[in-house]
Amino acid sequence: MAVLCRPAVAVPEHVVTMEETLELAQRLHADHPQLPLALRLIQNTGVATRHLVQPVSKALQHPGFEARNAQHTEYAKAHVPPVVRSALHNADLTAQDIDLLIYVSCTGFAMPSMTAWLINTMGFRPDTRQLPIAQLGCAAGGAAINRAHDFCTAYPYANALIVACEFCSLQYQPTDDGIGTLLSNGLFGDAVAAAVVRGSGGAGVQLQRNASYLVPDTEDWISYAVKDTGFHFQLDSRVPTTMAMVAPALRDLVAAERWDTSRLDFAVVHAGGPRILDDLAIHLNAPPSLFRHSRATLTEYGNIASATVLDALRRLFAEDMLGDGARGMLAGFGPGITAEMALGTWQPAVTSTDWEDELFNEAVTV
Amino acid sequence: MAVLCRPAVAVPEHVVTMEETLELAQRLHADHPQLPLALRLIQNTGVATRHLVQPVSKALQHPGFEARNAQHTEYAKAHVPPVVRSALHNADLTAQDIDLLIYVSCTGFAMPSMTAWLINTMGFRPDTRQLPIAQLGCAAGGAAINRAHDFCTAYPYANALIVACEFCSLQYQPTDDGIGTLLSNGLFGDAVAAAVVRGSGGAGVQLQRNASYLVPDTEDWISYAVKDTGFHFQLDSRVPTTMAMVAPALRDLVAAERWDTSRLDFAVVHAGGPRILDDLAIHLNAPPSLFRHSRATLTEYGNIASATVLDALRRLFAEDMLGDGARGMLAGFGPGITAEMALGTWQPAVTSTDWEDELFNEAVTV
Repeated sequence: MAVLCRPAVAVPEHVVTMEETLELAQRLHADHPQLPLALRLIQNTGVATRHLVQPVSKALQHPGFEARNAQHTEYAKAHVPPVVRSALHNADLTAQDIDLLIYVSCTGFAMPSMTAWLINTMGFRPDTRQLPIAQLGCAAGGAAINRAHDFCTAYPYANALIVACEFCSLQYQPTDDGIGTLLSNGLFGDAVAAAVVRGSGGAGVQLQRNASYLVPDTEDWISYAVKDTGFHFQLDSRVPTTMAMVAPALRDLVAAERWDTSRLDFAVVHAGGPRILDDLAIHLNAPPSLFRHSRATLTEYGNIASATVLDALRRLFAEDMLGDGARGMLAGFGPGITAEMALGTWQPAVTSTDWEDELFNEAVTV
Repeated sequence: MAVLCRPAVAVPEHVVTMEETLELAQRLHADHPQLPLALRLIQNTGVATRHLVQPVSKALQHPGFEARNAQHTEYAKAHVPPVVRSALHNADLTAQDIDLLIYVSCTGFAMPSMTAWLINTMGFRPDTRQLPIAQLGCAAGGAAINRAHDFCTAYPYANALIVACEFCSLQYQPTDDGIGTLLSNGLFGDAVAAAVVRGSGGAGVQLQRNASYLVPDTEDWISYAVKDTGFHFQLDSRVPTTMAMVAPALRDLVAAERWDTSRLDFAVVHAGGPRILDDLAIHLNAPPSLFRHSRATLTEYGNIASATVLDALRRLFAEDMLGDGARGMLAGFGPGITAEMALGTWQPAVTSTDWEDELFNEAVTV
């Protein structure tokens, strides 16, 4: 059965704190009638720090869609390879062992996608299947895991590499000042994450089943307005309430496995915001601590879009508390509103990891 | 085993002929030093007619990236649903039977993708998995078939719907006048195509195996330059020569099934241009007539990007000449340079099709 191995995650070097974010919001939007609300919303996110690919002073300047998108490619080429190498190492595989390369990014657009560049420059086989996904937003982390799982179900000896590359700071639109945008400006961060799904062998989360759910008629709750200045992120005020609508699908999935949501051993979910984690605990009748890894990602990195699920999973691995067969769920949430959900059990490593591996497995900061 | 059912294809109402294209090129680029070459290249395409979503006079006006992309969504919402209904009918399924919706389009960008709109408006189940692909260009038609095949291999009772929506005329960039662009302006057309891959049951091409191949170090041969004015298609002069590099991968795939490329009963390949079809016949030691359906698509509709493979396949079904177990290949080619290839055998319908079905199966013109 398919096993989702230990992820590798890198966050870039430029750090912006909650205090700096609040100061910036006050300075840039001093005359905004809803500034107090925006500041309160940002404070409520609990995002203490975020990491950006460039200094915040530079990130605030919009050089045009063309230059922005070119920066995205440039930063991706710098930041993705070490994370990919680390993820391959974590799975005890080389690039030559990978049969499917899923690359998800909603913050830059390229054709051909980065999959072609990675294959050409990192030693992947020319017959590696390429699956770039640009349009599932934050849900793409979960979707990538699930499509990798499906692929390894079809080909039990295959391996899939997932890469999530999200530089949300390159989507900053200085002329947008709706309340959803002001909140987003204080919420999103940059990160690169990668993980391997092995069709056979490997240690980590043995994937049992997956499912997708589209909350009916919520297409415009999270969306991009595509403009000459690039992609403009639009966030509806109803989004924080979506977990009430998604939870039944999560409960159905858990029930299909004859498990109980209140007795899960782990949960790795997209930390879009604090309300999502709070509400999930309520609607799944689960302790808030179940979502501690997702909350830690939100606090330390912000909402890092499709990379969030993989970073929360990295923290679960680092905690190293699960026993053989421990039961849990993974879920990405994003535009649609779409939930990409999975169930898995903990599959411990057969051989013990030595200290050199441990060192290598730490999150890389590039 | 997975069966690729009869596709449905629609081309829009506004027709532009080769003669009109040549007149336009002469009028718009009268002073271009390479005009004679451009005219010769366009003539060599053999594209007799193309169908556009708007009159050519309007298509020549660039209203800005935002307006263009909004038009793409508007035309997609008008043109895609009847094609989807026809493809479902061809597979003897309803929207409720579909488990995976693969939507490929490289000529417009939306987040959430059209998958969410289709699920909400056409009666698909909210748990339909969504797989939007925007970055594989013309290869996406083949990739969609192959990922649907993989999915139905993992879940043998599942069904996948493929939709390819390409309005290439909305990518026209009036300020670009490189020779590759002038050629492309006379080559690409608009179309919508859809087909179902059934995990069990159904008539059509029983999918045996698939493979992908990236021609090393050709990333910049077919690409988009992402600019404030949208996606600018860039075509390298070496692209027509790629089949010599792709053919070994096609031969390997055929050999893996212990078949012979010179004895295939059908071939449905992306008709990027006439040279591709000529060279494939040479490199696969196959008769040029093997590619007659792809050539017909090119002649009547132009290069319709990811929809090309599905339209050529529609023509194969319409010809109705294959016997039980006939052997053939499908292949999409696109940026990367990427080839997405598949082998299949003909699986005839168990029950005879009555005249009403025949009528319904004709290509819809919307």
